[in-house]
Amino acid sequence: MQNNLFLLRESLPFWKNLNENDQTMILNTIIEKSFSKNTILSGNNNECTGFLIVQYGQLRIYSNSSDGKEITLYRLLDLDSCIFSASCMLKNINFDISISFEKDSDILIIPSDIFNKLSEDNVYVKSFVLDLVSSRFSDVMWIFEQYVFSNMAQRLASTIIEQVSLNNSQTLEITHDYIARELGTAREVVTRLLKQFQDDNLVKLSRNKLEILNLDGLQKKL
Amino acid sequence: MQNNLFLLRESLPFWKNLNENDQTMILNTIIEKSFSKNTILSGNNNECTGFLIVQYGQLRIYSNSSDGKEITLYRLLDLDSCIFSASCMLKNINFDISISFEKDSDILIIPSDIFNKLSEDNVYVKSFVLDLVSSRFSDVMWIFEQYVFSNMAQRLASTIIEQVSLNNSQTLEITHDYIARELGTAREVVTRLLKQFQDDNLVKLSRNKLEILNLDGLQKKL
Repeated sequence: MQNNLFLLRESLPFWKNLNENDQTMILNTIIEKSFSKNTILSGNNNECTGFLIVQYGQLRIYSNSSDGKEITLYRLLDLDSCIFSASCMLKNINFDISISFEKDSDILIIPSDIFNKLSEDNVYVKSFVLDLVSSRFSDVMWIFEQYVFSNMAQRLASTIIEQVSLNNSQTLEITHDYIARELGTAREVVTRLLKQFQDDNLVKLSRNKLEILNLDGLQKKL
Repeated sequence: MQNNLFLLRESLPFWKNLNENDQTMILNTIIEKSFSKNTILSGNNNECTGFLIVQYGQLRIYSNSSDGKEITLYRLLDLDSCIFSASCMLKNINFDISISFEKDSDILIIPSDIFNKLSEDNVYVKSFVLDLVSSRFSDVMWIFEQYVFSNMAQRLASTIIEQVSLNNSQTLEITHDYIARELGTAREVVTRLLKQFQDDNLVKLSRNKLEILNLDGLQKKL
């Protein structure tokens, strides 16, 4: 409970603007839940899960097509929060996102009806939601612009650099298929480009593993 | 003035929740401006123009790269409003959009500082902004998903059908270059696909003109 209070104060800028009743209501209704690595909350199912706060973990937020293609939109790490898992309370949001837990994750959930009640008449909560939606909108625009305006080699280099930073390691245990879903392209395209990167001595490929030989060289591709 | 009042009532759902002072403030500071066809408001320059309400006209909202590539995000028609021309008041929006007037357009502008003042402490205005940002976010996600998950022939068919509806005509005066900027691709790609559509008797091509021969056939491509 003390720990939750700390987390709420840290992650919700409007916390100090709530009256004591509302603070107590959140503390009494909040749900602590652990999700194991590789759990997926997809599409309609997560629309009303509630407002998520990541206590500890790593979540991949992605969009997918009816025939199984995927593209990663952004990731959530410690203390980040997810509004689209409560998108039933967001008028005019009519797209689905899926959530994949990339690490064992501890999550706090404020139930949708409670969060909705707070945001309905509190301008600070409403402001926070607007800032959060704007921020995710900016993330998606960045990815979109990359997708439309950059070539695939640049985007592949950018993804490898991001993975080095996320895993804090220059040896990555990722498949070509994983990278393809990350970039919204076909596995064959990734394989061809990775081979080209290997010919340029930027990476070394082996089964389900990618070793980075020249991070500076990858950065120069951007 | 009477006309402006009508337009504000129609296009701003929070109008009835403003007190008389705020309503008067808007009516006294609002700017009426005409933009001629082909005018462009681009990037940083339009960040603080103000909150735009389209009285009459057609605006194309698009994203562009440093090397001149473009992709259309959405369009605004009569009574639509544009929040990104006041994005200086939106924390966390850190991408630029450009606006191109596709018809001579009459616009009402609520100056950014006035609009900001209203939204700061009025939960109805804040709500309206959130709904508007969410709605544009949904528009962009739709285009993004199309871009990632659909093939170019589907997207080309979709664009031709949209243009038929916008122009209320089956003979379109548009160039291959215009369609390429619409779709975020190269002109050569559009030309190749249009020739294929022509071979299939869906359209007839002539200089700067595109005649639709079989709208049903195009719709079947979607």
